[in-house]
Amino acid sequence: MADSTRIDEVLSTLDAELPQALERLKAFLRIPSISTDPAHRGDVRRAAEWLCAELAGLGFEASVRDTPGHPMVVAHSPKGTRRPLLFYGHYDVQPVDPLALWDRPPFEPEVQDTPEGRVIRARGAADDKGQLMTFVEAFRAWKAVHGALPSDLVLLFEGEEESGSPSLQPFLRENADELRAGIAMICDTGMYSDGRPAITTQLRGLLGEEIVVRAADRDLHSGSFGGLAANPVQLLVDLLATIKDADGRVTLPGFYDGVEELSDELAADWDALAFDAGDFLSRVGLRLPIGETGRTGLEMVWNRPTFEINGISGGYTGEGFKTVLPAEARAKVSFRLTGTQDPQAIRETFRAHVRAAIPADCTVAFHGHGASQASRMDIRDPAFAAAKQALSQEWGREAAHIGAGGSIPIAGDFKAILGMDSMLIGFGHDDDRIHSPNEKYNLESFAKGARSWARILAALA
Amino acid sequence: MADSTRIDEVLSTLDAELPQALERLKAFLRIPSISTDPAHRGDVRRAAEWLCAELAGLGFEASVRDTPGHPMVVAHSPKGTRRPLLFYGHYDVQPVDPLALWDRPPFEPEVQDTPEGRVIRARGAADDKGQLMTFVEAFRAWKAVHGALPSDLVLLFEGEEESGSPSLQPFLRENADELRAGIAMICDTGMYSDGRPAITTQLRGLLGEEIVVRAADRDLHSGSFGGLAANPVQLLVDLLATIKDADGRVTLPGFYDGVEELSDELAADWDALAFDAGDFLSRVGLRLPIGETGRTGLEMVWNRPTFEINGISGGYTGEGFKTVLPAEARAKVSFRLTGTQDPQAIRETFRAHVRAAIPADCTVAFHGHGASQASRMDIRDPAFAAAKQALSQEWGREAAHIGAGGSIPIAGDFKAILGMDSMLIGFGHDDDRIHSPNEKYNLESFAKGARSWARILAALA
Repeated sequence: MADSTRIDEVLSTLDAELPQALERLKAFLRIPSISTDPAHRGDVRRAAEWLCAELAGLGFEASVRDTPGHPMVVAHSPKGTRRPLLFYGHYDVQPVDPLALWDRPPFEPEVQDTPEGRVIRARGAADDKGQLMTFVEAFRAWKAVHGALPSDLVLLFEGEEESGSPSLQPFLRENADELRAGIAMICDTGMYSDGRPAITTQLRGLLGEEIVVRAADRDLHSGSFGGLAANPVQLLVDLLATIKDADGRVTLPGFYDGVEELSDELAADWDALAFDAGDFLSRVGLRLPIGETGRTGLEMVWNRPTFEINGISGGYTGEGFKTVLPAEARAKVSFRLTGTQDPQAIRETFRAHVRAAIPADCTVAFHGHGASQASRMDIRDPAFAAAKQALSQEWGREAAHIGAGGSIPIAGDFKAILGMDSMLIGFGHDDDRIHSPNEKYNLESFAKGARSWARILAALA
Repeated sequence: MADSTRIDEVLSTLDAELPQALERLKAFLRIPSISTDPAHRGDVRRAAEWLCAELAGLGFEASVRDTPGHPMVVAHSPKGTRRPLLFYGHYDVQPVDPLALWDRPPFEPEVQDTPEGRVIRARGAADDKGQLMTFVEAFRAWKAVHGALPSDLVLLFEGEEESGSPSLQPFLRENADELRAGIAMICDTGMYSDGRPAITTQLRGLLGEEIVVRAADRDLHSGSFGGLAANPVQLLVDLLATIKDADGRVTLPGFYDGVEELSDELAADWDALAFDAGDFLSRVGLRLPIGETGRTGLEMVWNRPTFEINGISGGYTGEGFKTVLPAEARAKVSFRLTGTQDPQAIRETFRAHVRAAIPADCTVAFHGHGASQASRMDIRDPAFAAAKQALSQEWGREAAHIGAGGSIPIAGDFKAILGMDSMLIGFGHDDDRIHSPNEKYNLESFAKGARSWARILAALA
């Protein structure tokens, strides 16, 4: 029986076209599309226009769409009768400072042979231009073989991902009918740490809070007042020390409402990853997991909620010593959330806990810093099985369902605004130095990434 | 019988010269002699030189004496046959941050009429330049009336008091014969809180420590590592929360060794002061004493040891939010000591306690910031009775024997190295905002302070 997807021809075309694909990626990487830097505003638009022209050249109905910030690039393949697929990436990049730590100019991409393999080195190589172009090259090869693009593709490429995506939610709301698809493919994540292909199926949520504890109406001399007057740093320290117990569990009442145990299936999958927490920590100079007693390392970072103090300040912190009894103390803290934990309910519980710990003659003020629920994809959607099989075939290793400890807000936005789940599939490595000097993307990730998308397109055809 | 001390003429001279005396103080206050800040090193020396020139102009044999840190100013009046008196003050000042909370530039002194009376406002006005100058103006008036300075005066003015006095002990040891006197007069304390003149007869000691807790070898992303990797801010917070128990008592083993209960006599004196802790705290916007359960307010600040967190920092503390899991966290802490508590022993106990709380894959570093024992004076020395009478005459109220919660390590050093007791007499008010923005010194303190010293000189003549 003839294979109507002609996947072997598509893959051969990708292999044959790799040198040209690399030249296209290099042209894209030469545009310094740093979204946080107003000086690069024109470059960000130039990157959007470059991308739009590429897509139009492939037969997409593509447009650069203005927002109050940087533009979106939206493209559609011809309408057909399939379940529509949305593809998301971002064409903006992180700033490059400290520039002195780069081995070469960050916007002059170069292919290099390194101990980490053959790589293309430039700002944005892995985050996210190289990953985004794995989509584009897969579509290009499909078109070359079939003479037409796959139908019912929706492409959404953002230019503000590295600067907090201020325009994204309004844009999704205003263009919901146009953008809604059966499922979203997001290419902005990594392989599992040992290089195994992976689909991220769950993300932790995040609740950020800032606390300001105030005591006396001025800084006091600790000799004159010490032992008598409240010290807001001590108050803050005392209350922050009570948020987690000796077993690493958060003590707030009701905090674990909605936290779910791993399914047997996922637990087995994760066990098979043979994650070594000590080895993982050793890469950053540590070795001892400090999470909840009785939990595996992967549970600690992917499936358990936690509490972190992200910043603290109060009193004299300069050179030398000052015997001050400070007037105020501040902390920025965050909770990572899992399952169906309700960020707003936890915010209220946390604030009540803090208020109860503050003496009647002191005050506390709160500033909320974002609240997003955890995401867990419905992996019974057949697209997951199809993608898993396609990835396993391409990489010669069983693809894994993994979690991510961080939050990828776009997945939550797609769910909340467009009602669709996301499949997070990416080909980055832990050593890609995204957000740091000397960012790189492995050529293997680029080549096999494009081949992976071609296989996924075929599997979903 | 003619009064050989001619005290009435000396006092009249002081009154008549007050405007000029204020101009001299303002000139002194304009020199930003912040000893803890290396950027002000030259200013500290400039203040020493200014002071030395003033004293030389009065006929003292005065010199600026180098040390490995900031210089000492030493001056002698002509040798005679009296019991020598040493006068001590410090010409360095505290840092000024937070600068934004000052109503005017801290080194542009101004006389202001305020609800607190007529004041001179500037950094160092009360601590200690204004107080130090009460000596100098008393000597000046004495000289004007008598044509000569009182004999057998030794002046020692320090430039490192606000930065832990690292050079003081070696300097006292190296110049012990030159500096040893019958008793030391130290002008760096306050009146009793209701404006009653007072001689401070006991001081708390001080032990300062700085802790740096380090975990990962770089800042981590709290999504990728949160719940698994040690957070040094949490470690620091957890251990600082254990130093005091729910009754406000320090939990370190052996900490209370050497702490003494009040004598019945002093307890009765202090009861007579009718100290109202709530009223005292209300002046700084507070009302609830937080000290040890079962202790009076005056015990809490004068006769009980305590623990304070003077500064804390770690992680992201700028605008907005950053989900960082920081690499390190720092705290500056201090213990106030009483009785014969041993600062070095407590330092070791504290460090052992901290080390025991740090996981094996994290580290802690310590920086000691001074260690001084508490001081308790022998008030049977007749100079105490003479000074008490002089003060009572000048202020029209019975002078009190009081304690001080702060540490004036110099008193302990004079005792330990030069074998002499100190009389601590100062004219500060609790609302002087020393170590805080908008520091001030009441003109009444300055004028009657100088008159008080003139009376004490006469009484001891």
